[in-house]
Amino acid sequence: MKATILHAPGDVRLEDVSDPVLAAPTDAIVRVTAACVCGSDLWPYRGVNKVTRPTRIGHEFVGIVEEVGPSVRSLRPGDFVIAPFMYSDNSCPHCQVGIQSRCRAGGFWGSKDRNGVMADGGQGEYVRVPLADGTLVSTRDVPDDDVVPSLLALSDVMGTGWHAAVAAGVQEGDTVVVVGDGAVGLCGVLAATRMGAERIVAMSRHQPRQRLALGFGATDIVAARGAAAVQVVMQLTEGVGADAVLECVGTGESMSTAIGCARPGATVGYVGAPHGVEYPVRDMFERNVGVAGGMAPVRQYLPRLRDEVLAGVITPGAVFDLEVPLADVAEAYAAMDERRAIKSLLRP
Amino acid sequence: MKATILHAPGDVRLEDVSDPVLAAPTDAIVRVTAACVCGSDLWPYRGVNKVTRPTRIGHEFVGIVEEVGPSVRSLRPGDFVIAPFMYSDNSCPHCQVGIQSRCRAGGFWGSKDRNGVMADGGQGEYVRVPLADGTLVSTRDVPDDDVVPSLLALSDVMGTGWHAAVAAGVQEGDTVVVVGDGAVGLCGVLAATRMGAERIVAMSRHQPRQRLALGFGATDIVAARGAAAVQVVMQLTEGVGADAVLECVGTGESMSTAIGCARPGATVGYVGAPHGVEYPVRDMFERNVGVAGGMAPVRQYLPRLRDEVLAGVITPGAVFDLEVPLADVAEAYAAMDERRAIKSLLRP
Repeated sequence: MKATILHAPGDVRLEDVSDPVLAAPTDAIVRVTAACVCGSDLWPYRGVNKVTRPTRIGHEFVGIVEEVGPSVRSLRPGDFVIAPFMYSDNSCPHCQVGIQSRCRAGGFWGSKDRNGVMADGGQGEYVRVPLADGTLVSTRDVPDDDVVPSLLALSDVMGTGWHAAVAAGVQEGDTVVVVGDGAVGLCGVLAATRMGAERIVAMSRHQPRQRLALGFGATDIVAARGAAAVQVVMQLTEGVGADAVLECVGTGESMSTAIGCARPGATVGYVGAPHGVEYPVRDMFERNVGVAGGMAPVRQYLPRLRDEVLAGVITPGAVFDLEVPLADVAEAYAAMDERRAIKSLLRP
Repeated sequence: MKATILHAPGDVRLEDVSDPVLAAPTDAIVRVTAACVCGSDLWPYRGVNKVTRPTRIGHEFVGIVEEVGPSVRSLRPGDFVIAPFMYSDNSCPHCQVGIQSRCRAGGFWGSKDRNGVMADGGQGEYVRVPLADGTLVSTRDVPDDDVVPSLLALSDVMGTGWHAAVAAGVQEGDTVVVVGDGAVGLCGVLAATRMGAERIVAMSRHQPRQRLALGFGATDIVAARGAAAVQVVMQLTEGVGADAVLECVGTGESMSTAIGCARPGATVGYVGAPHGVEYPVRDMFERNVGVAGGMAPVRQYLPRLRDEVLAGVITPGAVFDLEVPLADVAEAYAAMDERRAIKSLLRP
């Protein structure tokens, strides 16, 4: 089959790899019908995270179950499934409290599982899914094509934006600031809207992203960054600050902007993998500003968000503004890297 | 009147200062009937926080209202009152969400208020209380003497331990770890007990404090520190970690112990003024461990905790194991500094 391999920064290729086969009784084989490129895929693509050898890549996909192992109970061939960006058994103590991203038996796509067998990357034709019952969430029927992008968005960005809002403790009537206008930040805006936030300040200086933020429910757009952005938020809130802040980037600047915007007693919900982040310990103490979040347990939110997509309540698939065949995966990366696209969808 | 002045590290004296007088219509004058020494008073006493000039000290006191300004509505002479460790108007936007420790008009005892007039330190005979209606909480009747230590404990340590438990999100049935066996940590144990924690692990290597922790509801005592303490907690929880952790010290080691004990998804509620703390950013991200808390808004919790003390439900006054006349304030400090006393009560 064909699968995407990152060879070096800027060098991503679709290549032939071995077809996956069932390796454990709890496995499933999924034929990928749609996949996408994540903002976090850009960390190694840009060389910010080191690339030491050719690596299978991609962790967001939906598709059709082709085959299941004898222990799989909840799925059968032909089911349409959504995969979270990590696999998990959904039953260990960490999964039971909803932190499937720390599952004791779980792991990442595109690398070997605990038995030493490849769990394929999502940017390919097929994926061997370990712990299929715990990992995959199916829809009752195979969904219409126009719903697929929104279901695919649940694989990572929508669940991650949702986690930021949950971690920040967004409440009805809140004033919420969202730092980051990537797909996750935009989905964070949508999550805050669904949670009843009254005012949602989206930080963005890119018109297409601003439009999408407004479409997702943002009430204010702030184009400034850093200390200037904090100042604007303080003006907007009469010097009080935001009731909840979603940090959806992961850089030192974005985190300090987020913490600066938080009112005393508020929480910064963060989901961006931290790169160069240092917490202002004394300031947080004096203002009672907390931080919560981390690698999002999107599996926890999948059933609920799936139902909201199928009911037409949310359409997070709007974050995709580029769709290319899997063969053009290099362009899908380049377009996001150069900020020509917010998020690229791949069709195998 | 007599009041306590810190001249230099290790040099604390009771001296004559001017009697306080009403300076604003919202003021009250309180005659202090009991005060105490705080663990945080030891930071400057030990020279960890710089002492550049003689400073009025003390921020925990209860007493009798002597006089009120013409705008004071909720108090009258003769009332018994509890003072939180900061004064606040209890009406600004930060107070309204319960973060009175960040009141826009508030401030610290023992320093000048916004009008440049001294708000006296609590370790003295009288205190001019700014914003008396917002700051002081009274009891219906003058309480019996044996209840006074427990009411005095609400001034700081009990409200602070309670804040750690609130910030950590302690829930019924939880396994809770409390790092720190000072008065605040011990009160944190009591708070966790009141919130229905099923298992409470108190970290302490001092027998009198261990006994007090057990009396307050601790189920397990861990004498180890640092990585060894984390290991013990992991053994006690079958490798899972604690549902909630209270950090009641403020050093780098205590915070890293606290974060290490937290299970994925848990929050470390912290209240110790941070000295040398750095957060393990990547570890917190990967395990979804959050931190919340800060300078405790004890004013928020005072009415509830006062009622619990008066009803005999909690007796946080048990943390006082030394009582001396105000004249012996130097001994009150020395005993705590040398860990001969957990907490010293002063009787003016």
